[in-house]
Amino acid sequence: MTYCVGMKLDAGLVLLSDTRTNAGLDNISTYRKMFFFEVPGERIIAIMTAGSLSVTQTTLGRLQEAIEDPDADETTSILKAGSMLKVATMIGDTLNRTRREIAEQTRELSQQASASMIVAGQRKGGEPHLFLIYPQGNYIEATDDTPFLQIGEHKYGKPILDRVVTPETSLADAQKAVLLSMDSTLRSNLSVGMPLDLAVIEKNSLRIGLRRRILDGDPAFMAMSAAWSAALRDSFVKVTI
Amino acid sequence: MTYCVGMKLDAGLVLLSDTRTNAGLDNISTYRKMFFFEVPGERIIAIMTAGSLSVTQTTLGRLQEAIEDPDADETTSILKAGSMLKVATMIGDTLNRTRREIAEQTRELSQQASASMIVAGQRKGGEPHLFLIYPQGNYIEATDDTPFLQIGEHKYGKPILDRVVTPETSLADAQKAVLLSMDSTLRSNLSVGMPLDLAVIEKNSLRIGLRRRILDGDPAFMAMSAAWSAALRDSFVKVTI
Repeated sequence: MTYCVGMKLDAGLVLLSDTRTNAGLDNISTYRKMFFFEVPGERIIAIMTAGSLSVTQTTLGRLQEAIEDPDADETTSILKAGSMLKVATMIGDTLNRTRREIAEQTRELSQQASASMIVAGQRKGGEPHLFLIYPQGNYIEATDDTPFLQIGEHKYGKPILDRVVTPETSLADAQKAVLLSMDSTLRSNLSVGMPLDLAVIEKNSLRIGLRRRILDGDPAFMAMSAAWSAALRDSFVKVTI
Repeated sequence: MTYCVGMKLDAGLVLLSDTRTNAGLDNISTYRKMFFFEVPGERIIAIMTAGSLSVTQTTLGRLQEAIEDPDADETTSILKAGSMLKVATMIGDTLNRTRREIAEQTRELSQQASASMIVAGQRKGGEPHLFLIYPQGNYIEATDDTPFLQIGEHKYGKPILDRVVTPETSLADAQKAVLLSMDSTLRSNLSVGMPLDLAVIEKNSLRIGLRRRILDGDPAFMAMSAAWSAALRDSFVKVTI
């Protein structure tokens, strides 16, 4: 499985993904699930992926191929599309087409190949956007009421986000929130695993501000995780019923 | 949906269930999901249910009918069975048989009727036991390594349990832990709802020690929930990355 979370805040976009991929519990690998398509100063698009690796890799390969095509235009390349909404539509269409092709190829299997994606970004002259793209290619967008979107094993890490995240949350606090949300998920579900990929895209910067891979045993992450556990246990002792 | 959690601790058994039942989001009702079969001083059996109401009600009805049968013996009545393991087997068999009958009746529906149960109890001369019974009637038991079992919407409320519960946890702390676990679930998932049923069975007491229905708006539960939220937010501010 996977856990990816994206936030759209007044100050910008914050993204976090794990890297664990498994084909059965006895076949576990590390694959990046966060990808960037960037023209610094003009547009930045980030994609996070969950689901069948064959679907997500082929989808990303096709998006890249379309970008590199010498005849690429605003109807084929996500780096040329006229709005983030059109970018989301293009990615959704490519995902749906790829998923259907692979589903057709693997029809005799009981478990069908599927995938979903989080798309975040901003283009010059536009606002930052954050989308969750479903396997069928349709999508929803984060709003002020619901400033975060999750794919994969989203339930373990949702309570902390529900409690602390609002559009006014700072980018520093948002990084902390997604990391604590991931920490809860890592503890409770083996199918989500280190290392992590963290990225921050400040509003109107039109480039990746921070991009960090957090490795297993990362001292800062371990310290935060231990401090959070201790704080939770302290809070548990103090709360009365 | 449903959220039920049971704990087997050195000091006894602690159980908590919600009461929300829904047939579609527009048809929501309150149904008890925690049931007791008690011969005070001789044995106490508690059952919590998740899944199709027709399966769980019919299963409980059959268990009750078997108890009241004038010819009831240790092979048919859970109040006469020679061990808690046999009680779990009997309940599992009844659940599986009921589920299969109803699945047969509802074969043309895409969504099949299914249900799972948590069974907790102790009989005179035996130890306390806690089982999770699967729809097929097989079951697993709580151990010192895994002192709690959950059915229904279990993911939201698992991180807090993973952090604070061990077999040495007191019955008072265990009540707090299950209520906080439920609080996280209630906040993040609309299909789990108040009121709640809480029960405590002290080891070797062979009776229900505490049995409490917590209504929507219960002042103590609301105060705990608010204090926990405040403590989490405080902890969030203090933790650094």
